[in-house]
Amino acid sequence: MSLLDETLASIKPVDVSLEEAARARLDSLTKPRGSLGFLEDIAVRYCLATGTAKPRVGKKAIFTFAGDHGVVEEGVSAYPKEVTPQMVANMLAGGAAVNILGGHAGADVRVVDMGVDADLSKATGLLDRKVRRGTGNIAKGPAMTEAEATRALEAGIALARETAAGGATLLGAGDMGIANTTPSAALFAALLPCEPEEITGRGTGINDAALARKVKVVRRALEVNADLTDTPLGALAAVGGLEIAGIAGMALGAAASGVPMVVDGFISSAGALVACRMSEAVEGYLFFSHRSEEAGHAVFLERFGARPILDLGMRLGEGTGAALAMTVIEAAVKVYNEMATFDSADVSEKRE
Amino acid sequence: MSLLDETLASIKPVDVSLEEAARARLDSLTKPRGSLGFLEDIAVRYCLATGTAKPRVGKKAIFTFAGDHGVVEEGVSAYPKEVTPQMVANMLAGGAAVNILGGHAGADVRVVDMGVDADLSKATGLLDRKVRRGTGNIAKGPAMTEAEATRALEAGIALARETAAGGATLLGAGDMGIANTTPSAALFAALLPCEPEEITGRGTGINDAALARKVKVVRRALEVNADLTDTPLGALAAVGGLEIAGIAGMALGAAASGVPMVVDGFISSAGALVACRMSEAVEGYLFFSHRSEEAGHAVFLERFGARPILDLGMRLGEGTGAALAMTVIEAAVKVYNEMATFDSADVSEKRE
Repeated sequence: MSLLDETLASIKPVDVSLEEAARARLDSLTKPRGSLGFLEDIAVRYCLATGTAKPRVGKKAIFTFAGDHGVVEEGVSAYPKEVTPQMVANMLAGGAAVNILGGHAGADVRVVDMGVDADLSKATGLLDRKVRRGTGNIAKGPAMTEAEATRALEAGIALARETAAGGATLLGAGDMGIANTTPSAALFAALLPCEPEEITGRGTGINDAALARKVKVVRRALEVNADLTDTPLGALAAVGGLEIAGIAGMALGAAASGVPMVVDGFISSAGALVACRMSEAVEGYLFFSHRSEEAGHAVFLERFGARPILDLGMRLGEGTGAALAMTVIEAAVKVYNEMATFDSADVSEKRE
Repeated sequence: MSLLDETLASIKPVDVSLEEAARARLDSLTKPRGSLGFLEDIAVRYCLATGTAKPRVGKKAIFTFAGDHGVVEEGVSAYPKEVTPQMVANMLAGGAAVNILGGHAGADVRVVDMGVDADLSKATGLLDRKVRRGTGNIAKGPAMTEAEATRALEAGIALARETAAGGATLLGAGDMGIANTTPSAALFAALLPCEPEEITGRGTGINDAALARKVKVVRRALEVNADLTDTPLGALAAVGGLEIAGIAGMALGAAASGVPMVVDGFISSAGALVACRMSEAVEGYLFFSHRSEEAGHAVFLERFGARPILDLGMRLGEGTGAALAMTVIEAAVKVYNEMATFDSADVSEKRE
């Protein structure tokens, strides 16, 4: 049995029977019932995902999955492809936004080479999980084979399992890959599903002409690969990306390990969607960190029924939204654990 | 010259000439321009308020101002008045939500007795700034005299100035006071201005009948005190509250000290509005932490033109929203200060 099959077989739905105890705990705390709003729901979700009504936040880790995309040759990005390895180097040196925000959240930040189209064999600190140097151009054929997609998924699964075994109780996933909003849009279109027009946006900042071209590229990718996208794995291989597969794998591995994962923005949501389509139960282990400024993200969040924690107009990726949301999730669990109860503090309850 | 007059005279508008340098710094960082969205605006606002394009976050302090309200006798609250001193004791013991969230943000949390209707002279750790034991019932007459309101404002001013002098670079203000959404609604109605119906909400959770009663109480308060509410100070004294005055004073003192203040939710916004109506320049020193679930808060934020940092459906007060938003503000300043630049990291910029 492959690691992927074994992982899919071992994912259990979160234990919803814990909700009553978790809500009772929240209602016993010295505050009007429900007055912490979504923060209370976050604490409950954390309980369910970790399988206990007495949760704790231990180590936190954010993985930024990096990969390149053959579709960049269609002119769908505002940045040249060289920026992917440059930004990987910047992250390894600690200078990227995810390093600063991850540090602020108290999370370990690691960068994973899933498929950067450059020789990074000498890069210090990089997790080398390279499946191939960049994907094929999805406007002309499949991004990769299903075997390659499976290898990439399993790399993410293994990282999640190792990190959970090492004591992490909260994982975050982010992306780095020039042109990767294009395969993400194609995946949403195939798996949500939705129309390319409603899900395709400006990425790092393309103009109107480039956006029109990008929509056509997404549509063409779906047409060219039409007979390959019937299954989630098929869609991932045909129109996805290697870093997206790594993120999807991390979501599967997190769910299998009983550890919640914080999804970053648009690209990470595409990875999360692949994972949820492979195993519906994954959804209960996910926190959606923020509503990205990338236009299609709001469409995904609404259709998928996910409430994001933050809405700060961010569109950077890398795991920056996941990092910032981790501070809120940890705050919610602290409130749950550390506040006084009406009984212990001798505070009067509401008049009925 | 009184402390209040001296403070009002010394408040200068934030230095908008710094915005260009702050934006240039943000645009030099290794990320697509503007891709951190509101986080970038927060960093700029912090620069302007602190008067430097090289900001730092030093000590953070949250003050929870407590007071009681004569209007509680009109049946406008779901909780009995005794909860105010009970919750003050809970905060002093470290068991309230603001203690946990303030601790999470790395902020010092202090509780200020502005006017609790109980003898708290033996409470350890409490800042005793009591002006009187609770306000008068605003449905029947003024909450307090203008002299009392001035004393309460000056208590808040002095706390802000002392804390700023002690090295704090970010202040937060919150409230504790059973029934205090009623005077807050009256203040919004008088100073925003707006109709009592659109600004009055359920507070800690009253039912429909109590809400209808509460709207009438707010309307009556404005009628009974009609000839006292022509000035911001007059409105504060006539239909406000002592903890609201403390919060307003802290906003004035923060602005005079060149230190930004994070406004909590509905009640703190009422205090902030009083301060802004006394001195328009105060607004530039304020961060609005979150959109409260208290229905009228969205009305205030929209009319006042304030974008809240968080939107988590919270309605607890105490400074809980301010505490949580402080973590985001500090994250924004860290990004501004600590990220690598395109030059230093040798990353290619966008193709034009």
